[in-house]
Amino acid sequence: MVIGVVHGPNLNLLGTREPDQYGVTTLDEINRSLSSLGAELGVTVEAVQSNHEGVLIDAIQAGRGRWTGVLVNPGGFTHSSVALRDALLAAGVPFVEVHLSNVHAREPFRRQSYFSDVAIGVVCGFGAASYTLGLRGLVARLATSTAGG
Amino acid sequence: MVIGVVHGPNLNLLGTREPDQYGVTTLDEINRSLSSLGAELGVTVEAVQSNHEGVLIDAIQAGRGRWTGVLVNPGGFTHSSVALRDALLAAGVPFVEVHLSNVHAREPFRRQSYFSDVAIGVVCGFGAASYTLGLRGLVARLATSTAGG
Amino acid sequence: MVIGVVHGPNLNLLGTREPDQYGVTTLDEINRSLSSLGAELGVTVEAVQSNHEGVLIDAIQAGRGRWTGVLVNPGGFTHSSVALRDALLAAGVPFVEVHLSNVHAREPFRRQSYFSDVAIGVVCGFGAASYTLGLRGLVARLATSTAGG
Amino acid sequence: MVIGVVHGPNLNLLGTREPDQYGVTTLDEINRSLSSLGAELGVTVEAVQSNHEGVLIDAIQAGRGRWTGVLVNPGGFTHSSVALRDALLAAGVPFVEVHLSNVHAREPFRRQSYFSDVAIGVVCGFGAASYTLGLRGLVARLATSTAGG
Amino acid sequence: MVIGVVHGPNLNLLGTREPDQYGVTTLDEINRSLSSLGAELGVTVEAVQSNHEGVLIDAIQAGRGRWTGVLVNPGGFTHSSVALRDALLAAGVPFVEVHLSNVHAREPFRRQSYFSDVAIGVVCGFGAASYTLGLRGLVARLATSTAGG
Amino acid sequence: MVIGVVHGPNLNLLGTREPDQYGVTTLDEINRSLSSLGAELGVTVEAVQSNHEGVLIDAIQAGRGRWTGVLVNPGGFTHSSVALRDALLAAGVPFVEVHLSNVHAREPFRRQSYFSDVAIGVVCGFGAASYTLGLRGLVARLATSTAGG
Amino acid sequence: MVIGVVHGPNLNLLGTREPDQYGVTTLDEINRSLSSLGAELGVTVEAVQSNHEGVLIDAIQAGRGRWTGVLVNPGGFTHSSVALRDALLAAGVPFVEVHLSNVHAREPFRRQSYFSDVAIGVVCGFGAASYTLGLRGLVARLATSTAGG
Amino acid sequence: MVIGVVHGPNLNLLGTREPDQYGVTTLDEINRSLSSLGAELGVTVEAVQSNHEGVLIDAIQAGRGRWTGVLVNPGGFTHSSVALRDALLAAGVPFVEVHLSNVHAREPFRRQSYFSDVAIGVVCGFGAASYTLGLRGLVARLATSTAGG
Amino acid sequence: MVIGVVHGPNLNLLGTREPDQYGVTTLDEINRSLSSLGAELGVTVEAVQSNHEGVLIDAIQAGRGRWTGVLVNPGGFTHSSVALRDALLAAGVPFVEVHLSNVHAREPFRRQSYFSDVAIGVVCGFGAASYTLGLRGLVARLATSTAGG
Amino acid sequence: MVIGVVHGPNLNLLGTREPDQYGVTTLDEINRSLSSLGAELGVTVEAVQSNHEGVLIDAIQAGRGRWTGVLVNPGGFTHSSVALRDALLAAGVPFVEVHLSNVHAREPFRRQSYFSDVAIGVVCGFGAASYTLGLRGLVARLATSTAGG
Amino acid sequence: MVIGVVHGPNLNLLGTREPDQYGVTTLDEINRSLSSLGAELGVTVEAVQSNHEGVLIDAIQAGRGRWTGVLVNPGGFTHSSVALRDALLAAGVPFVEVHLSNVHAREPFRRQSYFSDVAIGVVCGFGAASYTLGLRGLVARLATSTAGG
Amino acid sequence: MVIGVVHGPNLNLLGTREPDQYGVTTLDEINRSLSSLGAELGVTVEAVQSNHEGVLIDAIQAGRGRWTGVLVNPGGFTHSSVALRDALLAAGVPFVEVHLSNVHAREPFRRQSYFSDVAIGVVCGFGAASYTLGLRGLVARLATSTAGG
Repeated sequence: MVIGVVHGPNLNLLGTREPDQYGVTTLDEINRSLSSLGAELGVTVEAVQSNHEGVLIDAIQAGRGRWTGVLVNPGGFTHSSVALRDALLAAGVPFVEVHLSNVHAREPFRRQSYFSDVAIGVVCGFGAASYTLGLRGLVARLATSTAGG
Repeated sequence: MVIGVVHGPNLNLLGTREPDQYGVTTLDEINRSLSSLGAELGVTVEAVQSNHEGVLIDAIQAGRGRWTGVLVNPGGFTHSSVALRDALLAAGVPFVEVHLSNVHAREPFRRQSYFSDVAIGVVCGFGAASYTLGLRGLVARLATSTAGG
Repeated sequence: MVIGVVHGPNLNLLGTREPDQYGVTTLDEINRSLSSLGAELGVTVEAVQSNHEGVLIDAIQAGRGRWTGVLVNPGGFTHSSVALRDALLAAGVPFVEVHLSNVHAREPFRRQSYFSDVAIGVVCGFGAASYTLGLRGLVARLATSTAGG
Repeated sequence: MVIGVVHGPNLNLLGTREPDQYGVTTLDEINRSLSSLGAELGVTVEAVQSNHEGVLIDAIQAGRGRWTGVLVNPGGFTHSSVALRDALLAAGVPFVEVHLSNVHAREPFRRQSYFSDVAIGVVCGFGAASYTLGLRGLVARLATSTAGG
Repeated sequence: MVIGVVHGPNLNLLGTREPDQYGVTTLDEINRSLSSLGAELGVTVEAVQSNHEGVLIDAIQAGRGRWTGVLVNPGGFTHSSVALRDALLAAGVPFVEVHLSNVHAREPFRRQSYFSDVAIGVVCGFGAASYTLGLRGLVARLATSTAGG
Repeated sequence: MVIGVVHGPNLNLLGTREPDQYGVTTLDEINRSLSSLGAELGVTVEAVQSNHEGVLIDAIQAGRGRWTGVLVNPGGFTHSSVALRDALLAAGVPFVEVHLSNVHAREPFRRQSYFSDVAIGVVCGFGAASYTLGLRGLVARLATSTAGG
Repeated sequence: MVIGVVHGPNLNLLGTREPDQYGVTTLDEINRSLSSLGAELGVTVEAVQSNHEGVLIDAIQAGRGRWTGVLVNPGGFTHSSVALRDALLAAGVPFVEVHLSNVHAREPFRRQSYFSDVAIGVVCGFGAASYTLGLRGLVARLATSTAGG
Repeated sequence: MVIGVVHGPNLNLLGTREPDQYGVTTLDEINRSLSSLGAELGVTVEAVQSNHEGVLIDAIQAGRGRWTGVLVNPGGFTHSSVALRDALLAAGVPFVEVHLSNVHAREPFRRQSYFSDVAIGVVCGFGAASYTLGLRGLVARLATSTAGG
Repeated sequence: MVIGVVHGPNLNLLGTREPDQYGVTTLDEINRSLSSLGAELGVTVEAVQSNHEGVLIDAIQAGRGRWTGVLVNPGGFTHSSVALRDALLAAGVPFVEVHLSNVHAREPFRRQSYFSDVAIGVVCGFGAASYTLGLRGLVARLATSTAGG
Repeated sequence: MVIGVVHGPNLNLLGTREPDQYGVTTLDEINRSLSSLGAELGVTVEAVQSNHEGVLIDAIQAGRGRWTGVLVNPGGFTHSSVALRDALLAAGVPFVEVHLSNVHAREPFRRQSYFSDVAIGVVCGFGAASYTLGLRGLVARLATSTAGG
Repeated sequence: MVIGVVHGPNLNLLGTREPDQYGVTTLDEINRSLSSLGAELGVTVEAVQSNHEGVLIDAIQAGRGRWTGVLVNPGGFTHSSVALRDALLAAGVPFVEVHLSNVHAREPFRRQSYFSDVAIGVVCGFGAASYTLGLRGLVARLATSTAGG
Repeated sequence: MVIGVVHGPNLNLLGTREPDQYGVTTLDEINRSLSSLGAELGVTVEAVQSNHEGVLIDAIQAGRGRWTGVLVNPGGFTHSSVALRDALLAAGVPFVEVHLSNVHAREPFRRQSYFSDVAIGVVCGFGAASYTLGLRGLVARLATSTAGG
């Protein structure tokens, strides 16, 4: 079982960018902890980050048929990218939306997401832990649906 | 370290009410799995459920000074109870908001929460697992702030 | 066949409160006329009134499995109580929403109901007769669905 | 005492049009059941249906002085016809608004009515029974006002 | 020079309908006073009234080429009839919108007009005098544009 | 019978300012034609113009007891001055609102008036003729109310 | 296979009315080109135009059972007629909405249609060609659904 | 003359809860200062506090006939409880709404009150002094209406 | 300690203007009662009234450095004057906003204030007593901040 | 005459992605049918698809001077890309907007387009046929303007 | 070439009022630096400041024919004064709008300007430098239009 | 001191694209004049333009630590790109937003910017001069903050 992990724009800066808002953990550390947790949960993790919406869409399209679920932090694309939403819908597998910060406690426009209503679940506000919580939730859900039917 | 768990109205019906929407796990099973996870994480869990907003507020007030964090699923009060929000703010400890279903995929009014902007984080859509993910996130956050300062 | 009748806050004052707006019939008289009409239509009527939202939710939960339909005048909860809405949905039986006054002819906020879109029908504006009309409509609908399948 | 019954556009199709939405009773059957109920309640019923807004306005104007109340299902005109509203106001007698389907459970635009705030009451969602309930409510109200003053 | 006068729905009731709101002058009297004033101003007046939107549109189309201006009280169609607006635009001559009552002092929906932004001017609130004032204004305007170029 | 005429800001520029929008008649010419029409109608006209909101309010206050009606073109204050509205209400006599241009055909903010809902009538779009039409309408209304009661 | 073609109000003026906006082709020419194209595509075309909403509804009702699809240009009724929408829904066959002009490039109210969300497709902005494009699209769709199941 | 004082949810925490926002005075101290001021002004004060909306409604109903005015700080219920509003209206006596903090300087939702438009007056922002100012204002008003008629 | 009292437009008419809305007390009487209460509370009161926004701004600027607090009834400027708001902010001392009438019970636009969110408190609805209550509240607040720090 | 065809994000998946929503025709098949129809209509077709907004903008810029019209399906960029809109405007040639699905029958955000108001026409809902209809419409329009001047 | 410089209310306080928000430069210093820069650019600068909207309008009217451009900081009038906007439009020369602070980073109401859409350009956020930048931009624009035609 | 200059999509077309709207100066000319002005002001200028949002974000990230300020014309991304906003925030240096055209005088959606509230200042409407004015303003601000602390 392979889980795609999609990191949106500016997340490559993690650990250096506005640490008060986003914490000090780097993206590499997050990816390593996801791999490690994935191993524990019996899934392989494939991560991609880009500041280019098109690169992310290409990656999601490339993951079709191979990924059985997606963990996505759309970053700034959360509030603007119907194209990324459509790519995830076209992927045809469940996905979980995560955010490092609590988007509900920031600028009003950050409360509008093009992903939440078609995600299976949403996790936000826990810093780097949002990712590991999201992965746990995604895998649990996939386990259930595989088992149940 | 004691974590208060607050279940809002109708959650006592879990396992019997609209299983397509809310799953088949009962509230007792959720509380037991939270206790069990709490033990693993080194925290004690105290759970309360009521269909009465006032009872929940009383319970939160009673937890002041004893609870170091709160895990709350406000249920239907999510969208209407400023009084419950105020009780949590008055408690003066961090809280996490969880929902069994993905509130973003339901009626529009369920996207408005009186809790999300003052919670430290939000988890929704994972069924009973929303609670355990939320507890993990809450304890991780408490650990960080205790350690860091 | 048992029909639950749920009267919201302040309806215990009927007959004494703002008679221009709400008429002079008391709640007891309404309940008696519902029982009497119920007898005529072949249903038993069980009425509850409370100023406490939680008491009404508890009552609806208690009626699960025994009530085959609900007649509800949510009073002031009409415009604020998602929890009561959820309780009725969890009851899993058809319900009819009634109001003594014509809510469309009063303050704008009274035009927003958390019940109308999930009720089978709505009756308002006929004073105490709203209840008996609602009961007739509910029983007719139940008869149809029982007969038809 | 004569009650005008005004059926709006497309209601002539009743029984054949979208039976899932509107039921299998025909308009003739509805009119006959209204006449029959009217006889029981001591009122005469005069029904008109048209797909032409102007014909309905003409009919309402013609009923002035003869009709003591109106039962109106404005159909699609509910959401657009100020002219029909004005005709009913000019008639100077109480009227009741009825709908076969529950307008609150359909497209959002069906929740806006140009009639509800000036009707004495509204009944919706009970199929053909909405009419008979509405007639009962109207006659009860007329009886009260005649008796009382 | 011929001026078309278009009276919308329910205006045939003038003098009998809600005199507090609309005054006691009849439509015939209004038409006679317009003819009389028209004679004084050197224009012929052709009036039409209908409760049927289509009849009014037909009349306006029939007036094309013969009418050099239009005085229109769209009545209830003011707030709903794009078709009537389009007919007036297609007529290709200036028109003035008049209302007996002050539409700004009534229900909020009466403040929205499909005519005002394409009329040359608007007169409301003066009862029957709104018509004569509107005719004066229209003729003055036509005189100016004829004279000036 | 004295009619106050209140001209708002920038109307002193009439005849020189944006003639396409406002025409070539000067304010003096308007005042003279109002005086002349007033004489014909049996009323005296007192005109004031200022670019200062306070001066206009002072003038309206000074006219209390002496003016039996007011003709007001609030100019740019139409959309912003509650204080001027309050002054007119405090004057306790009927007033008519006039505009040279058709405010409904310009910027959207010009469709919002703080005067229309408390005026007896509104005239707009006829250039300088808006004033004389407004005066005719006002005097006719005053005549009616004086005669009638 | 018979296709109903429904032309809304003022479309009888085509070729003479505002040619900049609507072109110089007459309605007869449009109907003839539709018949001609229909012959080519193997369908018969029946056209109706009226300025009367009721006449159009009557015609659509009369076409039930005979028409297998509808091509409709609701004209000014696009933005106001729920009754016409309901008639088309009651017809129970697919329909295509067409407009001569690009409704998105005109007044804001022209962007709201009561037809688009229940049409199978929409074509606008191509002048008379909007009709022939719409007929092609409709017939192609009907062919597909007939062939496919 | 007896004045009911109604304290909404969480106000029992006063003096300990968020002192920056709500001050250091306890609820007991507020009640005592109201009693003391009441004695000075010649009225008796009866105070109730609850976190349960239903308890407050019951108390207001119980005060009917005995209370001649009400001083109410609805706390979090300010923005959600139509039921409490209705209870106060049913009480049929004047009431004053008070808030410790300046609700206009906080979250936007705190600017919406279900009480202000039916209160005789509102006082907010003065901490515990809001109550005493409110009591003074209420008693002054009651004195006036008693004296004047 | 000197308190500036700023009365907005039309308040000079108090006692004569719309007594049902604003009471019979004159502005002089209000000023005298404020002086008298000020003496009791140990503060001097300086009052200014003008119908000219600029005069009020000038006065507030002149009071800088001398006034330690401001009591302001902005009248009609409440809803429109950012300039007056800015003047008060520039004064750099606390101010209280008062209104004679209950602004929440009047036209909707009166619920929007440019002052409330930057005032320390708001009092409305008590007629002339709003001023004395406001002065009490202001002085109490000033006393607290002086004493505390 | 060369027509640019611009396919937005995810359209490369056509035929495999959500066939219920988007049909089974592939993008290659669409491009071939456009070429074929183009040949018939006397135009050459140049198609580009990308998931990268920047690539599409570059392509449109490269087509300047060579393309005489554009057929564009902006896909998910329809609702978000002002940059793509600007590129098309900068191209200075007419363009037609097409969509496979009926965007009016889907999520509300799909009804907002940054292209429709500056396109010459819009076609949606006909699956792959939307493209060929759009091309026909575009070529017809170009023919007209070339011929007419 | 003379440039009018118009300073709105409270700008006379510059250098003393809220220096964090508005800086420490005085209005005199700004005017001197504008004169100096004007000399360098070949224009004469005439500055006016007032807290009275009417005085500013009078000044702009007085500048007609003499001023070839205007630099305006409307201060608090930015968001409320249609009268000032109209005065600038009546002046018939280009104007530039400047603000000391970044109005987009403050209260939401400060983002609405009655000037921006009719200005040639807007500069904000640079403190006193906003004026000199605005003057440079204005003079450059005037130079262009004079030179170009 | 190095200033990054970021040009958004389609700005490479400057001088050729819609000259009425955007002027005849090319991007190269703008960059040269910025370099030249930069030399005069003591700063080095580094310019980047792309039609690809991702390229711009990459460039801004690459400028971190080297750029001490940014001058950005986000072009069409102004209204849609939260990702670009986030990149600028992550850069952690002040930036100025510029536009060639006056965005307030164009389509309504151009008045919404994701940059203005976090920029230090905004300049728009001066054509190519917007850039040089913006650079002056930025450098002045940087000088101040460097000097002051």
